[in-house]
Amino acid sequence: MTPREQPQRVRVQNFTVSRDGIGAGEHQSLERPFGTVSTGPLDPSKLMAWSFETANFPGRTDGGGTRGLEDRLTRDFSQNIGAEIMGRNKFGPVRGPWPDEEWTGWWGEDPPFHTPVVVMTHHPRPSFSLSDTTFHFVDGTPREALEQAFAAADGKDVRIGGGVSTVRQFLEADLIDELHVAVAPLEYGSGLRLWDAPEDLTDRFHLEKVLAPSGVTHCFLWRR
Amino acid sequence: MTPREQPQRVRVQNFTVSRDGIGAGEHQSLERPFGTVSTGPLDPSKLMAWSFETANFPGRTDGGGTRGLEDRLTRDFSQNIGAEIMGRNKFGPVRGPWPDEEWTGWWGEDPPFHTPVVVMTHHPRPSFSLSDTTFHFVDGTPREALEQAFAAADGKDVRIGGGVSTVRQFLEADLIDELHVAVAPLEYGSGLRLWDAPEDLTDRFHLEKVLAPSGVTHCFLWRR
Repeated sequence: MTPREQPQRVRVQNFTVSRDGIGAGEHQSLERPFGTVSTGPLDPSKLMAWSFETANFPGRTDGGGTRGLEDRLTRDFSQNIGAEIMGRNKFGPVRGPWPDEEWTGWWGEDPPFHTPVVVMTHHPRPSFSLSDTTFHFVDGTPREALEQAFAAADGKDVRIGGGVSTVRQFLEADLIDELHVAVAPLEYGSGLRLWDAPEDLTDRFHLEKVLAPSGVTHCFLWRR
Repeated sequence: MTPREQPQRVRVQNFTVSRDGIGAGEHQSLERPFGTVSTGPLDPSKLMAWSFETANFPGRTDGGGTRGLEDRLTRDFSQNIGAEIMGRNKFGPVRGPWPDEEWTGWWGEDPPFHTPVVVMTHHPRPSFSLSDTTFHFVDGTPREALEQAFAAADGKDVRIGGGVSTVRQFLEADLIDELHVAVAPLEYGSGLRLWDAPEDLTDRFHLEKVLAPSGVTHCFLWRR
């Protein structure tokens, strides 16, 4: 379809939390990228199982996978997205000043973004590219990071990629237009919490909840 | 996202039927493009309300519309589609030999396909283009039409666009890889029937059913 000219939007896509609102554990490390929750290390393959099992999950090469609702949501991840903003902890486990520039993200030589990525950090470093993803480092407010991402997005939308505290910062600054959050049928008890319940946001957002056969409740929120 | 090299697939997308399986009425005419069912002329704005009300419905210019599940499905309509195949009755109400070439479809100067479209008819006529849609006319079997559509699709998938009897022909020829069919909360009593129930197809297809808040049940079927 010919893209229609529309204002650039700020979107959260396929962000997944437990039933008690937890999207990551505490004490992230190189060995435990998703940190630790009350039951032990958070296993992303359980939290994200709804997406990992679909035919369009990036990196799947076996020709298998499901092709139901959740496959549509998986392939929607990049639809009309021109840039991503992420927090430093989504980018990596290093804290404080960078000892060197060896760390280039968790994703190897072909990161799954394929657009410019703006990493928010108090310790900027030079931009670099891996395959068709370019990482930029910005020390600034959410609004400043967003301006940079809009400029890099070639007229397309900007995805707020997480983690939890980055999404919360953008919600607090009232900079998000729409969210798709998958609520997985798990309870973590402790960790980094996005919300107590999606209804926390209904003063500012419409909320639609759809239960998938996987047991995941997909929450779609868009600005009133 | 960089398109991955995958075999071309044959897909039915956003095809909508009533709870009793009816996708169009009988006695189609210029005035009644969707024909007549037991309750009177079929009103597509009721049958397709789930999609018409979304933000991404083609032609919407008011900036409004919903942005829930059904908006994702609406914008998925063209995702990785390189060509459509339609039956002659989806193309227009003229029957038999073309009196002239004046009829160019129901859609005005900017049809919502934006790809090559293969129209199956026993009365071929020269190809023509409107905006970025080109219509070709083929007198042949479903397999022959599909070969032409695959060749025109530039490596992308082919959508079987309908109507009902065209989808049925392709199902009978076992040429469809996946279907998304929306079952609207309406009963028509008479008309052109896609199926008695989606379970008719579960010998050959996986079936996932998802109930949307609109009252529509979205059926996703993909080959076993």
